[in-house]
Order: sequence, then C-alpha cells, then structure tokens
Amino acid sequence: MIKLKPIFAIAVLFFATSLVKADDGYRLWLRYVPVEDSKLMNEYRSQFTSVAISGNSETVSAIKNEIKIGLSGLLDKEVEISSTFKNQGLLIVTSSSEHKSLGISEETERLGNEGYLIIEKKINGKNTIIVASKTDIGALYGTFHFLRLVQTQQSFGKINIEESPKTTHRLLNHWDNLDRTVERGYAGFSIWDWHTLPDYIDQRYIDYARANASIGINGTVLTNVNANALILTPEYLIKVKALADAFRPYGLKVYLTARFSAPVEIGGLTTADPLDASVAAWWKSKIDEIYSMIPDFGGFLVKANSEGQPGPQNYGRNHADGANMLSTAVAHHGGVVMWRAFVYDNNVPDDRAKQAYNEFKPLDKRFNENIFVQVKNGAIDFQPREPFHPLFGALEHTPIMMEFQITQEYLGCATHLVYLAPLFKECLESDTYAKGKGSTVGKVIDGSLHNHTISGMAGVANIGNDRNWTGHPFGQANWFAFGRLAWNHNLSSEQIADEWLRMTFTNNEKFLKVVEPMMLNSRETAVNYMTPLGLHHQMARNHHWGPGPWVNVGRPDWTSPYYHRADSVGLGFNRSSTGSNAVAQYFPEVSDKFNSVKTCPEEFLLWFHHVPWNYSMKSGRSLWNELCYNYYSGADAVTQMQTNWQKVEKMIDNEQFNQVKQLLAIQAKEAVWWRNSMLLYFQQFSKQPIPNNYEQPDKTLEYYENLKFHFVPGIKGE
Amino acid sequence: MIKLKPIFAIAVLFFATSLVKADDGYRLWLRYVPVEDSKLMNEYRSQFTSVAISGNSETVSAIKNEIKIGLSGLLDKEVEISSTFKNQGLLIVTSSSEHKSLGISEETERLGNEGYLIIEKKINGKNTIIVASKTDIGALYGTFHFLRLVQTQQSFGKINIEESPKTTHRLLNHWDNLDRTVERGYAGFSIWDWHTLPDYIDQRYIDYARANASIGINGTVLTNVNANALILTPEYLIKVKALADAFRPYGLKVYLTARFSAPVEIGGLTTADPLDASVAAWWKSKIDEIYSMIPDFGGFLVKANSEGQPGPQNYGRNHADGANMLSTAVAHHGGVVMWRAFVYDNNVPDDRAKQAYNEFKPLDKRFNENIFVQVKNGAIDFQPREPFHPLFGALEHTPIMMEFQITQEYLGCATHLVYLAPLFKECLESDTYAKGKGSTVGKVIDGSLHNHTISGMAGVANIGNDRNWTGHPFGQANWFAFGRLAWNHNLSSEQIADEWLRMTFTNNEKFLKVVEPMMLNSRETAVNYMTPLGLHHQMARNHHWGPGPWVNVGRPDWTSPYYHRADSVGLGFNRSSTGSNAVAQYFPEVSDKFNSVKTCPEEFLLWFHHVPWNYSMKSGRSLWNELCYNYYSGADAVTQMQTNWQKVEKMIDNEQFNQVKQLLAIQAKEAVWWRNSMLLYFQQFSKQPIPNNYEQPDKTLEYYENLKFHFVPGIKGE
Repeated sequence: MIKLKPIFAIAVLFFATSLVKADDGYRLWLRYVPVEDSKLMNEYRSQFTSVAISGNSETVSAIKNEIKIGLSGLLDKEVEISSTFKNQGLLIVTSSSEHKSLGISEETERLGNEGYLIIEKKINGKNTIIVASKTDIGALYGTFHFLRLVQTQQSFGKINIEESPKTTHRLLNHWDNLDRTVERGYAGFSIWDWHTLPDYIDQRYIDYARANASIGINGTVLTNVNANALILTPEYLIKVKALADAFRPYGLKVYLTARFSAPVEIGGLTTADPLDASVAAWWKSKIDEIYSMIPDFGGFLVKANSEGQPGPQNYGRNHADGANMLSTAVAHHGGVVMWRAFVYDNNVPDDRAKQAYNEFKPLDKRFNENIFVQVKNGAIDFQPREPFHPLFGALEHTPIMMEFQITQEYLGCATHLVYLAPLFKECLESDTYAKGKGSTVGKVIDGSLHNHTISGMAGVANIGNDRNWTGHPFGQANWFAFGRLAWNHNLSSEQIADEWLRMTFTNNEKFLKVVEPMMLNSRETAVNYMTPLGLHHQMARNHHWGPGPWVNVGRPDWTSPYYHRADSVGLGFNRSSTGSNAVAQYFPEVSDKFNSVKTCPEEFLLWFHHVPWNYSMKSGRSLWNELCYNYYSGADAVTQMQTNWQKVEKMIDNEQFNQVKQLLAIQAKEAVWWRNSMLLYFQQFSKQPIPNNYEQPDKTLEYYENLKFHFVPGIKGE
Repeated sequence: MIKLKPIFAIAVLFFATSLVKADDGYRLWLRYVPVEDSKLMNEYRSQFTSVAISGNSETVSAIKNEIKIGLSGLLDKEVEISSTFKNQGLLIVTSSSEHKSLGISEETERLGNEGYLIIEKKINGKNTIIVASKTDIGALYGTFHFLRLVQTQQSFGKINIEESPKTTHRLLNHWDNLDRTVERGYAGFSIWDWHTLPDYIDQRYIDYARANASIGINGTVLTNVNANALILTPEYLIKVKALADAFRPYGLKVYLTARFSAPVEIGGLTTADPLDASVAAWWKSKIDEIYSMIPDFGGFLVKANSEGQPGPQNYGRNHADGANMLSTAVAHHGGVVMWRAFVYDNNVPDDRAKQAYNEFKPLDKRFNENIFVQVKNGAIDFQPREPFHPLFGALEHTPIMMEFQITQEYLGCATHLVYLAPLFKECLESDTYAKGKGSTVGKVIDGSLHNHTISGMAGVANIGNDRNWTGHPFGQANWFAFGRLAWNHNLSSEQIADEWLRMTFTNNEKFLKVVEPMMLNSRETAVNYMTPLGLHHQMARNHHWGPGPWVNVGRPDWTSPYYHRADSVGLGFNRSSTGSNAVAQYFPEVSDKFNSVKTCPEEFLLWFHHVPWNYSMKSGRSLWNELCYNYYSGADAVTQMQTNWQKVEKMIDNEQFNQVKQLLAIQAKEAVWWRNSMLLYFQQFSKQPIPNNYEQPDKTLEYYENLKFHFVPGIKGE
C-alpha cells in the first residue's frame, strides 16, 4: 500500500452534461427530444400517452411509426398505440363512417385528398384531440402537424385547425448524376446509391421520405435536368421502382428527367423528332413500361434546347411540340410533364433576360393540359436578388411551376448562412398586375389567378450524403421553408423560421430572440456583400462560388461585364425603354415603375438602369458611395452574426454550435473577399476612393483576380 | 359527446422497444452502450465512477473526453474526473515520479513510448486499477484498452496487462483523390472535405482519429498513391496542417503521397531526375516548408513507375535513386519514405508475379535507412487468396512495410461480408524460411528477423463518408482487425472477431455463437465462389467487381486468360521450374513445396501449376469436379449465412440487422453470378458437365458476358 502525494493542482472537473449525446443534425427538424417546458410536458403526458389509430395501410404503419418515435421521444415515455378507440387522448381517423359519427364529414370532404383537420372534441366526457382526414396521406400530414405543435410547445385547448395545400405539385428537383456527383450540390454526394439499388434500401431513403412528408412535399425528381438517358433503361428503372416503393407510404411520388434524345441514345432510332411517329411510339412504349413498374409515377421534368441539352428545336420543332408529345404518353396514366423555360438561343441575345418570355409567351395556348412550364423565380439564374420573372402572369393558359433553388449555387454554397424564405416570399408576394392589383406571383403559381387545376412549386434540392443532409446546419431551414411555402405560400418567413428553430435547436426564448433576427436578415446581408442594388451574375466562372466581375472570355452572355456594364460613366444594365426594353415584358403598372430610374426600387436599380457613379441615391450618398456602403454593411453584418451566435453557446448542443461557429468564420472571410473584389474591380471605372471611414482592402485587385481554385464542389472536377 | 363504435378489430400494439434509438453504425466499435450484464455493471459502477487523470496536454484532454463519453455511457451514469488522486477506483498516470511511487518505473520505461500497463494495486487499502505509461499517447492507448475490457465485459481482478506495439509504423493508406472520389472506395466518397478545410473541422475528423487511436493506428496517408502534385502546394498544405492538428492529440501522424514529377508540375523545373541537383533542392525546400507547418509530418508514400505513374526510371535512374533523394530530405526531420514495390515494366513480362522481386532484390543494400519498401501481401494484386510475396524474407537490408488492402477491391466491394483477419493472418503466419524454419512474414515485417529499427504495416482504407464509414457494417471489422494486427500480429482472428462483435453489436453469447463462425468462414467462402484452388485475376475489367474470365483484350498481363491459362488440357499458370519458374524466388523449403504438383497446397494449385481437368485431387474428385464443388460450396455457404443471420434478428438493433440482411441477399445473388460465370466459362475448355446433383445455371455464358454496368463505385465514371 502506497500513498500518493497530492501533486495535481487542478480542481475537480465534473462533466455535468456528459450524457448529452452530440447532435450531428441527421434528424433534421424531426429530433423529438423531450419537451423542455415541464408544465407543458405534464399536460402533454396526461393527454397523449395513449393513441388510437385505425387502418392498416402502409401509410398507417408510417403514421404509427412516427407517433411511436415522435411522441415517445417528446414525452420521454413509451406511448401506447391501439387500433381500437377506447377514449384515448389522441385519435387519428380516416374512416368516413367515423367522420360521420364525429360530425366532421363535411370538413374532411372539403379539405380534399391531402387536407386534414386537428380539433378538440369531448367524447364520453373526455377531451380528445382528433386528427381527421379523408385519406391516409392526409392523416400522415396531420400527424406531422400535430407533432410539430408538440415540438414547438403549442397549447391544444380549443384547437381548431383546417389545412389543405395551396398547390397540387410540391416537388424537389435533384440535380443528381448517376455517378453520384450532384450539380450545384454542396453537401457531399448524391444520396441515391444506384450501385446497391434495388436490393439495398438505405434507412436514409425512408428518413428522406419522412422529412419531406413532414413538410408536405409530395414529389421528387430523382435525376439531374442535364439528363442521362440510362435512367430510362430497365437496369435503372428497377432501381427507380425500389425508391418509389420506399417513398410511397409517405405520399412521395417519383419523377424523372427525360433526355430528349433518348430514343436515339438508348432506343436505337435515328431521330428524336417529336413529330416522328416512331419517336412518339418509342416514348409511349417506354412510358407504359415505367407505369407497369411504378403505377403512380409522377412524370417528367425536361430541360430542352438549353446549355447544350438536346430538344425539339434540333428538329425544327418548338417547345410545345416536344412537351405535347411526351405529355400525351403520360396523360392517361395521370402523369404530368414539366417543361423548363430556362432556355438559351444558340445566338447571343441582346438581353438574355428577355429570352424565356420571347420563346414561351407565343406558345401559351399550345400546351396540353397536363403540362407545366417550369419557370425560375427570376429571368437570369437564381441570383441573390432578381425581380420576378416576367412570365409570371404573362402565361394565362399554361400552368406555371415555380422553380426555386434551395441549393445555394450563387449564395455561398454550403458555407454561408443564408435563410431563403425571404427570397422566396419576395417573389411570391410580387404583384404582376396580370389581372389588376393583387395578382401576385403566389396566385399565379397556386393556379387561382387563371383557374388551373394543377399548380406547383419545385425546389432544386440542397441535399447530399453529408451526415446532416445539407452541409450547413442552416441549409436545413431552406429545405424546410421551401416545403412549408409550397404547401402555403402565405406563411411568413418569421413563422417558418420560428418553427424550424424550435424544432431544430430549442424552444428557449433567449435563443430565439438572438437567432431569429439573424436568420431573417441573412439574405439581405448576402445580397449586400455579393451583388447589392440590382447587380447580378458577377460570380466566378463555372463554380459560381466566389466573385468574378472580371470574367470576360467566351460567350458574351456568360461573362460578368455583359451584366454589370461598368464604364467611366456609371454602372448597370439598361433594360429600360431606352435600352433592351426588357421592362416591356411586364404588365404596365410594373413596367412603368421599373422603367423610370426615379420609381425603380433601388434594390433593382442596376438591374434595369445604367446609372452614373455620382447619381444621388435616396440616402443622399452617391451611387459609388452607396455601393461601398452596401458592401461594407454586408461584410459587417456577418461579423455581427458571429458575435450574436457566440451568445447562444450554452443554449444548444455543442456540436451544432461549433459547426455553425466555424462556418460563420468562413462566411466572414468570404464576405470580405466578395466585398474587396467587387469594389476594387468597379473602382477601376468609378475612379473614386473607398471612403476612408472604411477599413481599406489589404489585397490588390490583381491578387483577387489571380486566385485559383481546384475541385470546388458542385461541378465536375476541374 | 359521442360514442364511437369499437370497429377496429386489431389488438393493441405496444412498442416495447420504442425508445431504443436506431443504430446507424456511426459510432463504430466505440458505442459505449450500458453494460448488459447487471452483476458486472454493479461491479464496474462501484469501481469506476470516479477517475483520476493528471496532466493537461491535448492528449490528456482526449483521454478525459474518452473516459467521459465512454465510461459514462457504459456505466449509464456520470463519471467524475479529477486531476487529483483521492483514492478513486481508476488512476491513469504518466508522471515518472508517480510511477516511482507506484513502483512501476521499470515497466513503464521498458514498454516504451507507445506502451502501457494496466494493473491492479492496493492503495491506501483500496483496490485501484492503474493505467500507466511513459507518455500521454501510451496512456491514451491504455485508456482505449481499458474501455475495451469494460465493453467486452472482462473481469478486472488481479489484472496485469503489459502492452507495446510490435511495429513502429501502423498506417492507413487512403486512396482518396482531391475531388473526393476514392479509388477502390465503396463507402461513399472521401471523408476529407478539402473545400471547407482548413477552416471547418468536421467532427468526423476527430472521430476518425479516435477510432484509429483505439486500435493503435498511428499514421495516415491522406492521398491516393496515384498522386496529384497539387497536394504539395501551399493552398493544400494549410489544409493538411489543419488535419494534422486535429489528429495530433490522438497520436495520429499525417503522411502524403509524393507525385514524382511534382518538381515539373508545380515547381517550374524542366526535369524530375532524382540525381539532378535542382530537383533535390526543390524537394528539400518543399519538405522543409511542410515541416515548418507540420513538425511531426510522417513522410511520403510513393508509387513510381507503375501503371503510368512517373518515377526515376523516366530518367534512367532506379527506384533506390528516387527513394534516397526523397529520404535524405525528410531524414533530419524524422520522416520516412515508403516506396511501393508494386511496379510494372512497360514491357509485358513472362510472368508478372516475378516482377517486383526482380526489380527490388538487387537493390536491397541500396536504400537509405529511413526507407521502407512497401510490399503487397501477394505478388499479383490483393486477390481473394495469394501465396505470400517472395520479397518477404528476400530483402534483408531493407525494412519492408506490409501493404494489406482493407477495402474489398476484389472481394465484393462493400456488399459482401468478408472478414479479412484470416487473409491477413494467413500471410503473416506464412514461413519464408529466410533464416530457417520459423522465419514468418510476421517476423519479417515487425523487424525482428533482420533487426530493423523501423517496421510497419499499411492498410488501404475502406473508409468513406457513408454514415457507417465502411458501407458494409462488417467492413468495420476489417478496419478494426487491421489495426489490431498492426499492433500485434500474433493476435488470432478469433480473438479479434470476438472483441469486435462484442463492442459493435452485443455481448450476448447466443449472438456470438452464431455470428463468430460466420465471420471466420466468410473469407474462405468468398475464395470458393470467386477464385478457388489458386485461381486469380479473373475479375471484370476496370471495376473488378464481378467475374470476367473472358476479359481478353489489351495488354496481356491485364487479361484473365494470362492468369488462368485454361485450355483443352487443363487449367492454371505453370510457375514451376518447368514454367515461369516464379517458385525459384522463394527460399528452397518453400520453393520445393510449391514446385511439385504433389506437395503444393491445393489452395495454391492453379497458382503454380497447369493441371489436367481430370487430375485427381485429394478429395478423390477430378479437378473439374473439385472446381464445381468449390464454386457450389461457396455460393451455398452464403445462403447459409443468410439463414444464420436471420437467427439473430431479435438480439441486435433493428437497423443494423436489416442492413446486413439486405447485403447478404445481394451477396447471395452475386455469389451465384460468380459461380455460374466462372463454371460456364471454364466448361468451354473442360467439356465436362456440371455434376447433376447441383442446380444447373439458368443463364447462358453469353448472358453473363454481355452484362453491362455503369458508374460502378471505386473508379472514375465510365
């Protein structure tokens, strides 16, 4: 027996949080951790530990599973699920006879095939929360809504919720290649592991479907719009079928991209002319084959005659000819065709912004009724800010599918915190004046403005095989926000942020008070340090990650100067009536406003006007000084985000805290990179100093121009 | 108030296991779930809930963290950690004065810089478990050993463990490209996210270091042997430094692959001739630059003059010239050079198996002392079975680094359950007779046979960014087994399997009784359905995933017939003294045994001999019937694995069970694919029937030959 001297001076370390498992973000907003508020926890426990769910479809199994893992997790207590109603506190019901008994038949009918209600009713003297719907899928959506209410610590007294989606087609677009690279993907690689399909069903596929169902997404286009015809071969179709089978219980339909030249590439034909009978027959046969395997196949998304993709114009036909041929073959199966309006002439146009409108407006009456024209929110390409696309409102006879980009191609990839709901909302709330005041883009795409029976919203996914799905933890918020807005575009950015933060991090009000404003301002911040005042298309070539105002070789409408038009006089693209007259594509109320440098909102000023460097802005600053002000404000705001984030360190999981902290440091560095590059570049034309109250750039323009990068994610290796 | 009719007939569902979180495999063998045996749990709890650890290095922090998450998890109870010893039940100690007090100075000194002891001692009347070591890294290794003892439910009474590694260099080789593809990688993509380095330190990097330290791996080559010189540019070196910093607390050094032509590609020189002074100066300067950033940088792995890689032979120099030039520049920093012996002539050799020996044996005395020649276990290329490489034992003056392949390039990629410890052990236990009987490969590579001061083992990693790291859950066992054997090649396959299964799944004896034999037999099973009796190199071109005995175009020594030599007479490559005489590269005892068709082990028969179809095997069967027997046994054994696995359904986590179940179904299908393809192909030469007691192939040879695959993982897209 020996006695050790007490030589170690440091005091006892006690790891108070040692049993808190680090959160890697895999569970997304479906974390189902125990309710934090102890009073509410007691209320929920007394109400919800026993649940009645009838039915035995695969979707009902999914509901039971979600109640099992969700409610048991939230209540930190095993929940008993019964298919017999015995006065449990929660009843989930899809049977029409039960609806009749409960006196809610009218409501469930009215809310349709995806709608549901959540109400409180006294049954046998006991307050019962009822989730009721016409269909099992409606009940699944209602179940997720119910769980969200518990996750966000809502009260259930006198609850009376009626929900049904505003659009019929709520889709993710995966730009996933068959080799598992993802075009503009920044969260690792494709979650579709084609090699092990169809035999291996990764748990991630199920969790993907759960996450989508939880926010009402009901379709997914599995493959890149820059399409590979191989996906249509039997070897791949059995893999697609396996995914469709895995997703079906969650109401998630699969769609594919159709390579227009597939009849030649895999069909052995010598032409893909849509008016050629053998081509139409080949597609019909191929489509029948798909539906024989996947009876609820959703249809096709097509990028044709754009950026090198083949299309009907290769054969002297137009977009309607191509789309109609395909749509005829899917129509009797209930499928749709989504034909993208993002097209390029082979010839360089005077103004690329005008091109989609010029191409599609004349075809408005030519499309079959199961065709969407899928239009990006703006006329260029997912910029930090664009005015709404002039096709919204302009097409009356053709339903428009909105295409938003959830993945941050032009917004810092996966290392910048940019909450996109304000960007989506800005577009959705824009007034087209197509049928007078109040003709918002939202009403165009939900079909109400022009009375379409199909309507929809697509989001280019930011999902990859990173452990947390989206690379940046806050990228999850953009997937979530897209789904919530596709369901109901009237939701506010604030409400969505509040829901997501509570579900993903904590209901701690102190946390929310710091982080919610940070999220809500983050998109404006990014605009400021990247492309303020209507600037656009100023990114580096190919990877689009950093700044590249100097990019000036190759096709003119793929260069930066084509868009910024900087010269000794001023800055900006004159799209007014004295310039390209792109403004004329809008309805008069909008056109007039944009056309005048006086009435044009300053956030779009350089989009529509070439403005002198010394033009006096509303702030009283000159254009040049305003530009400096915006860039510095943007970069400073990121520093402020870092300071704010530091305040929440003890309020959330340490791994999540550290992830965001590290990413904000990258964002701060890159915001300065953007700011300095852009200002030093434009300074060559303005010949004016950066006001000396600002920290001056410590690198030269030449330094920034000469930065070289390799293997930037989201494009094929360079 | 309404009364619902009890219309739902199904009985109450009660999810007894609803709070068990699904296990996605991310935690590897470091799961740290509560001890299952309640008696032991009580013992452990009374002994170990309070721990004393002194010191304040980063490695000591890592030890504290591991004790915190590990012991708290295992004991399901918060563990108190103090840096002052106050008669806690567990003491971790690296201070030499404390060793003296405890009377263990001799032991800790003797066990060296990576060794440790775990003993029980009475201190102040209380039984104390002591983990003691000379260094913090030794203590970390001891801590992982201690935790393993708890994980595998060992008793601590009278414990007396002394451990030190048998080799100095225990390395993973990542064949990871800078675009995150992984050559021969089947578990997703590279875990190195070069784009977000150096600013973003993914938790996965830390967990990777933890996992490696837990099995004693002390180095990692980050980049593919088919190297890219960009990794040596400052832009990438700061990223490498960030990884080195993250790994350092865990005793894991970083190494890089050196592209031999880097002085030309990134250095602006016109030559990479190793005897050119400017080339040597460039490398010296580059290496000094690396060490200024990473003072403990490990050194370089080089693939030169092989499969198109540049090397000293491009300049008329030999491998020693190239290796010596590099090794001189790293020597004074303490680094090493690992020069691969896997080389190809530009000319097709009479027997590729002889090539490495012919090239390297004459250079034995020419290498500087900080150079390893890195030799694959066999002379061809990581086949399901190969005789040991003749260079083992043949090089006396040059330390040989063993190169095993953990990733299953030729063993079903990530969808086949093949436990590789028996393959590794078969090689390590092979007797070279270099210094008479008992001169095993193990003694060659641990340096004891020829008294080398450096010694080592490298494993080509099977790690990717899949959630469970290795794709197949049992792939984790091969990473684990490699590490354990690199530490101590005398461990048995059985012991390693037992440890891994207990740590990864459960200590349930019923489970172990079913699954351990399944693991231990799995490699022999794979040999049987792929390439029994010494067959080798029969895989499909490029992707190496499926069978390709018919592959017969291009360079002859890259075709299958070059190796199988099937003709109307028989089958096999005559490497005896009447053939290529490759046998002569072995020491006489081995050579004589292999040289005679009578004494050659049947498992290597067709490796060394061309044997007539009707040759009578030891079983009494003809060669052809034996071949059929082997192929059918192999495929049947996989079916048996499926049956066995089904037995453990209720014993382990459901997600893990289902993953393996699905993968075994794929393996069963592919075993039949291999069996049928190989037998139908060879039947063309044997002209004999598959015995009719076997289920006959239901597809033709032509069917198998015409199968086309796209985007098979592990190679650049096809």
